[in-house]
Amino acid sequence: MTFRFQLHHTDAETGARRGTFTTPHGPVETPGFMPVGTQGTVKGLTIDHVASTGAHMILGNTYHLGLRPGHQTVRALGGLHAMSGWEGPILTDSGGFQVFSLKGINKISEHSVVFRSHIDGALIDLTPEHSIEIQESLGSDVAMVLDHVVALPAERGEVQQAMERSIRWAKRCLEYASRDDQAKFAIVQGGLDVDLRVQCARELAAMDFEGYAVGGLSVGETPDEMYRITAATTPELPAEKPRYLMGVGRPIDLLESVVRGIDLFDCVMPTRNGRNGFAFTDSGPIKIRNAKHKTDTSPLDESCDCLTCTRHSRGYLRHLFIAGEMLGPTLLSLHNLTYYQKVMRGAREAIQENRLAEFIATKKSQWGIT
Amino acid sequence: MTFRFQLHHTDAETGARRGTFTTPHGPVETPGFMPVGTQGTVKGLTIDHVASTGAHMILGNTYHLGLRPGHQTVRALGGLHAMSGWEGPILTDSGGFQVFSLKGINKISEHSVVFRSHIDGALIDLTPEHSIEIQESLGSDVAMVLDHVVALPAERGEVQQAMERSIRWAKRCLEYASRDDQAKFAIVQGGLDVDLRVQCARELAAMDFEGYAVGGLSVGETPDEMYRITAATTPELPAEKPRYLMGVGRPIDLLESVVRGIDLFDCVMPTRNGRNGFAFTDSGPIKIRNAKHKTDTSPLDESCDCLTCTRHSRGYLRHLFIAGEMLGPTLLSLHNLTYYQKVMRGAREAIQENRLAEFIATKKSQWGIT
Ligand SMILES: [Zn+2]
Ligand SMILES: [Zn+2]
Repeated sequence: MTFRFQLHHTDAETGARRGTFTTPHGPVETPGFMPVGTQGTVKGLTIDHVASTGAHMILGNTYHLGLRPGHQTVRALGGLHAMSGWEGPILTDSGGFQVFSLKGINKISEHSVVFRSHIDGALIDLTPEHSIEIQESLGSDVAMVLDHVVALPAERGEVQQAMERSIRWAKRCLEYASRDDQAKFAIVQGGLDVDLRVQCARELAAMDFEGYAVGGLSVGETPDEMYRITAATTPELPAEKPRYLMGVGRPIDLLESVVRGIDLFDCVMPTRNGRNGFAFTDSGPIKIRNAKHKTDTSPLDESCDCLTCTRHSRGYLRHLFIAGEMLGPTLLSLHNLTYYQKVMRGAREAIQENRLAEFIATKKSQWGIT
Repeated sequence: MTFRFQLHHTDAETGARRGTFTTPHGPVETPGFMPVGTQGTVKGLTIDHVASTGAHMILGNTYHLGLRPGHQTVRALGGLHAMSGWEGPILTDSGGFQVFSLKGINKISEHSVVFRSHIDGALIDLTPEHSIEIQESLGSDVAMVLDHVVALPAERGEVQQAMERSIRWAKRCLEYASRDDQAKFAIVQGGLDVDLRVQCARELAAMDFEGYAVGGLSVGETPDEMYRITAATTPELPAEKPRYLMGVGRPIDLLESVVRGIDLFDCVMPTRNGRNGFAFTDSGPIKIRNAKHKTDTSPLDESCDCLTCTRHSRGYLRHLFIAGEMLGPTLLSLHNLTYYQKVMRGAREAIQENRLAEFIATKKSQWGIT
């Protein structure tokens, strides 16, 4: 079997899962975090840097890569693995989130979504089948189905219609897909309505996907709402398949969602915040531009073994940001991604030893969360 | 002796020199090229990247670092080596070139040059002594004297006055300097006037500097004028001291200047051109944005063993530039610096075997220079 998800252990107290998701390009230990490489590169980092953070699987984006350089070009360059040089597993998002988040939506029908390219304004007609066609050209290990995402808050009727369309589109994706070496993951929609979420999860669970995602969250709702929807959705998903919470989030969100049965995450936060001079550490968040770091010779995080923390001081990092040097964003992104991986590694070890709740309590204390 | 310059061999045909300049932070093989790290970082590269290019000594800038983060801050962070993490030799430019290139010049006197900071407009009074004071705080292995650089073309009288002032300022720098672990290099001025250059070289050669630079070139004159002035100046400099041609240049300029007796170089060209999508290769220059590279799976340079060339295709590099990704400038800068080091290494080997002229002829043929 090309894809396999082995559940090694379930935390006795919380029910959090420790597993391994095996792909054609290697294993992904879960719970796991995927760095985002939207355009075929994790912003500012070489592939050696990304590997050094401990990441197993990275994420690419169908919407962005389909527009530029175009899926035929990626295919001509040998697929996304050969093109980017990343030899590990890759998951590609379907483009649904990007298309429905843009202002350029032109027309949504049962057939497709028509939108304007953010690059050149061209009209693009994206069907579920075309999203899979692009992802098959990209050659990712995991393809996501095209989903209809609605902005929240929204009328229940609108959320329901988009959810039901997402189910039909998921089925079309599954029927169209032709690559055995590419797993298909469905995406549960339904806004903040538990009944819709449950209905969507059950209908998708009845189809033969290799994994299931919870989508349409982290779009402005409170963390508690997100946790509530996640907790209501995961019990409806097949226990023997990996579960992926899309676009989430802060380190605490990852841990709270692991407790609610999630195995995989992706988020731009560690890289985007890194580029903006914001670092995650075991002593809580750090704004590196702050004047108090000016002559500080200590590293960002004493306990971190990334290149940033082993080679450079807070004072130097502050200087790089104040002087507008590219190396600042690179070094903070590298640290933040390393930190996220360390938190996930800690969670995996804690689950294995039935002490995840204690681990989370310690982290909350370190991060100043009460 | 803290500093030592050993001449290993002189090319029988051209007279080019092969040597080793020893500093407190290690040896610099000559002829050698120094990557420019103006603000305490070679733009877009980690220190591991810089080391991987084969660079021995890097350059920092007194003007930029003196303004931001300020020399007291650099000192508080342990000096430029500790601050940047670069453990090899560092040379710092005096700030003369930057101050006299800016529009913000306020007043030049025998005492000092008063200029406006490009950062906040503050008036700064820079004396030769203060330039050395800053460089002593930075703790570079080599400090450059403060020189008076005139924009060319200029009246002979103006060039002569600036040259004579540069000699007096060089003397003041030497008298003020107090660190035994920091070499002082004088800078020969005199514009495009051979008589002034010779006079300046002789007067500086009579003082006890550890090395000599040729400054005020690569400011718009033709390559042939630059070669002519270099050729007329180097015979007047002490043979047993290293000679540094400041701010030069294209790979061919480096080789033509090695023939004329130069040992050290620095230039922003490999990094600046790299950021702009321009690569130096053994097949001549490459503009990576060109559409012809779109689906090209070959590396920038078949014979290069840098991370860029061993991991990535021209097609991917083009994509990074077209998509505006930071990784593009990083990867092309890394390649270009590796390429410059390879050209210098080739020149050193060729000198050792008395075949520099042949080596240069081969390179000119590869680069399409007739
Ligand atoms: Zn770190
Ligand atoms: Zn290369």
